[in-house]
Amino acid sequence: MSERVATPVAPGGTIGILGGGQLGRMLALAAARLGLKAHIYADDADAPAFQVAAAHTRAAFDDKIALAKFAAICDAITFEFENIPEAAVSYLAALKPVHPSANALAPTQDRFAEKSLAVSLGLKTASFFAVNSGDDAAEAFAGLGGHGVMKTRRFGYDGKGQARVSSAEEAARAFLAFKSAPSILEGFVDFAFEASVIAARGQDGRFAAYDPPENFHEHHILRRSTVPGRLSTAQIDEAKTIAKTIGDALDYVGVFCVELFVTKSGKLLVNEIAPRVHNSGHWTLEACLTSQFEQHIRAVAGWPLGPVTRHSDAVMENIIGAEAADWQALAATGGALYLYGKSEIRQGRKMGHITRLKPSRGGH
Amino acid sequence: MSERVATPVAPGGTIGILGGGQLGRMLALAAARLGLKAHIYADDADAPAFQVAAAHTRAAFDDKIALAKFAAICDAITFEFENIPEAAVSYLAALKPVHPSANALAPTQDRFAEKSLAVSLGLKTASFFAVNSGDDAAEAFAGLGGHGVMKTRRFGYDGKGQARVSSAEEAARAFLAFKSAPSILEGFVDFAFEASVIAARGQDGRFAAYDPPENFHEHHILRRSTVPGRLSTAQIDEAKTIAKTIGDALDYVGVFCVELFVTKSGKLLVNEIAPRVHNSGHWTLEACLTSQFEQHIRAVAGWPLGPVTRHSDAVMENIIGAEAADWQALAATGGALYLYGKSEIRQGRKMGHITRLKPSRGGH
Repeated sequence: MSERVATPVAPGGTIGILGGGQLGRMLALAAARLGLKAHIYADDADAPAFQVAAAHTRAAFDDKIALAKFAAICDAITFEFENIPEAAVSYLAALKPVHPSANALAPTQDRFAEKSLAVSLGLKTASFFAVNSGDDAAEAFAGLGGHGVMKTRRFGYDGKGQARVSSAEEAARAFLAFKSAPSILEGFVDFAFEASVIAARGQDGRFAAYDPPENFHEHHILRRSTVPGRLSTAQIDEAKTIAKTIGDALDYVGVFCVELFVTKSGKLLVNEIAPRVHNSGHWTLEACLTSQFEQHIRAVAGWPLGPVTRHSDAVMENIIGAEAADWQALAATGGALYLYGKSEIRQGRKMGHITRLKPSRGGH
Repeated sequence: MSERVATPVAPGGTIGILGGGQLGRMLALAAARLGLKAHIYADDADAPAFQVAAAHTRAAFDDKIALAKFAAICDAITFEFENIPEAAVSYLAALKPVHPSANALAPTQDRFAEKSLAVSLGLKTASFFAVNSGDDAAEAFAGLGGHGVMKTRRFGYDGKGQARVSSAEEAARAFLAFKSAPSILEGFVDFAFEASVIAARGQDGRFAAYDPPENFHEHHILRRSTVPGRLSTAQIDEAKTIAKTIGDALDYVGVFCVELFVTKSGKLLVNEIAPRVHNSGHWTLEACLTSQFEQHIRAVAGWPLGPVTRHSDAVMENIIGAEAADWQALAATGGALYLYGKSEIRQGRKMGHITRLKPSRGGH
């Protein structure tokens, strides 16, 4: 337990949130439940989170005057996505408490640092190699001994900045296609299924992890999270221990997600660490008394974490792109429907989600 | 089934809400979940619902210019409390769809009309007499044959405008203390317990009722709602039928609450009809997939009603006045905590609530 617990943000106080997408929106809604005001800082005019926040700032993330004004209004600051420029986070942290910290954020912004951290903590990952040149790419491929996936080290999401490669030439070509951005080549994992664990760490160092869902992706975008999934009791415990190991190592404050590959032999490999609330945790809104969004706000505000027990089994399904046009049919299915207030439907864009519950068959 | 279903309000549309207290706030949060914008209209500068709405208007309820501007922005309009001036509702209804309608609202604004409606529908109430003079009061008391409660016909809530009377003289004095406002004298009901039923009626005439909670009041303010309470299965069915009878008679659209006395001999007496979401339905936020707030927004927006089944047993407790100062202890109890964003703690003021769940022991 660390000893740096500041005075908690009292009801009526303001939580600043960098980023105004659906995650910022659901964080703002969670803050409101607790009597806290949300101030959204985003650079787009039409950010969905603006609609539900007590106040918002529209400005660039490198606008120091706007950042300083924002910090002056906020009692604590957080963010909804990991690609916030590190300079903005550091600048704000000098003015007001920012959670998670820039130190915790940094390794999650770089796939090589992220996987190196996991390995240094004794956790398992796919094999991986840093790639800084076409020669590196070819050499790394030779080291893999099989298929691989080339990924940019920074700023990738939903399959962007990723390419599957089956030869040294393809690896080199993928690197060039990424405009020679620093990359990693990962061994292709022929996993049994994917899973994730959503966990939280409070300012007092307390840790709590939700039951890990099984995740199914389509076209590199999360389609569905199911809890409980196919993880065994031992794997559920192992997933939570992995999250605790990472959270403690980063002295993390807030909610984070560890995405896992579950191999056919039953091993759990760390795939990604997301320093934020996560799409695969949306089912906590219905199936748990404290959602991942409220949990994050609690941690950021210095409140005690809430319970993570799950009263029901849940299946969360994303509503992607044109599927949102069917909102009338979706509203009639009896699931818990969320629409994110995005004015424009675009292919592959996450427009909402729907969660269905059934009585719990265990997994607590 | 009526045939007046208009085009539903599509995601991105705006629901106007008259009133900016905690009910308006929770309605706005529910609208946001569905991708709808909330526009709050209230006359106080510091309305809690302003903090979570996409937009708000601060103006008096008789300001026709402000009302017209508000209507121009909204796709459908509703209200969070029944004491909206009828003139404002009628004025708005000429401009945009207002649910529930002025016709449905009117009888619930007047205790005499409300109880007369219940009786005309074959429902049971306490005995009651209209009182328009001190002589009426004395005469009505003689008709009761026991203790009574004098109540103003309009604008009473949380015990305001109520007095228990034990003699004809006390009845006449109570009437004068109400400044001779039109009143009713009700027979005092020595009930076994109080209950309520929260129900919804869609624009298509479909009806759905949540399981009725048992309610416990302290100093005329709701302290606690428990579901399931002590109602028998037959009483649960009867309570839902009472609500359906009233909803159909009023051609009601939206959520409403019927407060009931359960007598020692097991009879259900209609006490009050609230044409809005209700404090005794806050537990639906956690224990049901569709909360009373989302249900009301669905009805007002012309969407299909959501499921009202209850996956857990629940106890909802209000946080009243100075109790809110204990927010840190309340946040650590493991219940679902709501704080309403009210800047000032006042005696008897509803500051928040907390709901605890346990696995369901039936009552569906």
